[in-house]
Amino acid sequence: MNQPVVLISLESPHSFWRLSSEHERALSASFPGIEFRRATEEAVPHQLADAHVYFGWRFAPSWLFAAPHLKWIASPSAGTDHLPVAEAHSVGVALTRSYGFHGRPMAEHAMGLILGFSRGLFISQRVQRNRAWWKDDLAEEFFDLAGATMTIVGCGSVGRHLAQAARAFGMNVIGVRRTPPAASEDGITWVHTTAVHQAVSVADVVVNLLPATPATHRYFDHDLFSACKPRSLFLNLGRAATVDQSALLASLDTGHLRGAALDVFDPKPLPARHPLRLHPRVVLTPKSSVFCRAYMDKAVAFFADNLHRYLSGQPLNGLAEAPATRSPLVGG
Amino acid sequence: MNQPVVLISLESPHSFWRLSSEHERALSASFPGIEFRRATEEAVPHQLADAHVYFGWRFAPSWLFAAPHLKWIASPSAGTDHLPVAEAHSVGVALTRSYGFHGRPMAEHAMGLILGFSRGLFISQRVQRNRAWWKDDLAEEFFDLAGATMTIVGCGSVGRHLAQAARAFGMNVIGVRRTPPAASEDGITWVHTTAVHQAVSVADVVVNLLPATPATHRYFDHDLFSACKPRSLFLNLGRAATVDQSALLASLDTGHLRGAALDVFDPKPLPARHPLRLHPRVVLTPKSSVFCRAYMDKAVAFFADNLHRYLSGQPLNGLAEAPATRSPLVGG
Repeated sequence: MNQPVVLISLESPHSFWRLSSEHERALSASFPGIEFRRATEEAVPHQLADAHVYFGWRFAPSWLFAAPHLKWIASPSAGTDHLPVAEAHSVGVALTRSYGFHGRPMAEHAMGLILGFSRGLFISQRVQRNRAWWKDDLAEEFFDLAGATMTIVGCGSVGRHLAQAARAFGMNVIGVRRTPPAASEDGITWVHTTAVHQAVSVADVVVNLLPATPATHRYFDHDLFSACKPRSLFLNLGRAATVDQSALLASLDTGHLRGAALDVFDPKPLPARHPLRLHPRVVLTPKSSVFCRAYMDKAVAFFADNLHRYLSGQPLNGLAEAPATRSPLVGG
Repeated sequence: MNQPVVLISLESPHSFWRLSSEHERALSASFPGIEFRRATEEAVPHQLADAHVYFGWRFAPSWLFAAPHLKWIASPSAGTDHLPVAEAHSVGVALTRSYGFHGRPMAEHAMGLILGFSRGLFISQRVQRNRAWWKDDLAEEFFDLAGATMTIVGCGSVGRHLAQAARAFGMNVIGVRRTPPAASEDGITWVHTTAVHQAVSVADVVVNLLPATPATHRYFDHDLFSACKPRSLFLNLGRAATVDQSALLASLDTGHLRGAALDVFDPKPLPARHPLRLHPRVVLTPKSSVFCRAYMDKAVAFFADNLHRYLSGQPLNGLAEAPATRSPLVGG
């Protein structure tokens, strides 16, 4: 076989999401038999003709027609809902996501959002300019993390990182998953998806990490929000499509939910006067929960490990399953 | 000796800072030989005449003249700067502070404030109503806690709790103390006060937990802020008197400091248009870092343990030293 060609398209306005020349040099040094080529996103379709492997953020379904030798699409993302999983599968091209390094920044992000509510920090920031003193308000509002319960819906690799951080603050953690481990593990109480209503009914904090699949579409609906413990806090760090935003707003407006922190929402960005933007108990972040200065270092390391597997004929890590069989309840 | 009398005055607008009738019943059940009396703050001076022990939030120096049998003043607070330490000492009355349970809520509070800055949550909350999208701003601003360094100045019992939380996020922790332990302990790199300038020069986050003593008055001055690492974050969860607020503002205005989070400031509350209230990179909380729903449970348990010691002639825990010899660099 000719020298395998790996086409890389990893552009971003943010340096931590771009391939650096150091990354490129390190890959070339680790894989002397491979030809690494870089392409802008626009140039990808023209460069795919003799590529065997593609490593990049985006892959349009039509690009498959321009890639007769392509065997594997590697994404540095945790999710695959923006990638042509079914199309690649149908023409025998493997598609892999990345995992194991999104959990750390996402755990920081989630704990920051939770503590921002639990310690009254968001209230404080809002009123510090206009209110003489607001200690009494906070005394009503705050809650202790120690002894409180967090339920993580879609508790995969990211969820385990988050659980570890939550447990460092003395929280009890319930992990909801379609395929829960048999025993209590990592200090997490595992429950099956079928018990999700019970799992959210005892939680002071519910964190949604569900991926977007047909099975998780508007998974958090009126019914599930109603099952949540009164005065609980809801976080969505997964995908916007898994939440019925009208049902969420209704639960906030009745006071059933204490507040919500959303890293994802639909549409993105929300329109100027959208009620979620204006709600006094909603904090929005611009899909920044995975921000991490070391992101590309970790993504390249994950890819390099997989490339070794590819070259030696071992099974790839992070293979996206074809839509019919993929697991809807594994986050991260 | 007659039945010892313990006078209790633990009033507060906040239930978690009040003695409940359950607490009172539990104390009476544990110490059948003791007469527990409760008094409003106003009534304390009139009730002290035959009290041997006082357990309460406040103690005016003049009250000592009304307390001929008093042997011990027990405070549920961590600090003693609002109590007549020198006066009590001079008339042979012991005065104790409480410790061991402020660290948990203060660690939650501090980590929430740090993550609010590091993950861009405070910026997000401020702009979510008015800005179309602010992902690029956050991409510039955020920093990872993993691998970052926190220096805790006045690293006592509270500092150790905070260090534990910081280390759960992968931070390196430097503890500054007048009497540092000999070896690295609890994963903390201990340094002596004399090296405080070096200790803050390598820190991404500096947390001030100093108590207020003559030796710590305006400890954080222009010199010490200038020694801080550029773009570092400053937290004060100790006492306002330990910080020169003008020097802090100057360091914020030049951009030398990334931001500041203050749970204490002078005066309290700050005047309406005070620059610290209005500064876009300052977050103020109303001395709420010790808020904890279980506060009085823990304070009563600490007192009960000390009361056993008192009755059996063992040395009391948390004895405040006379001003001349007390340690200025032990927080918490």
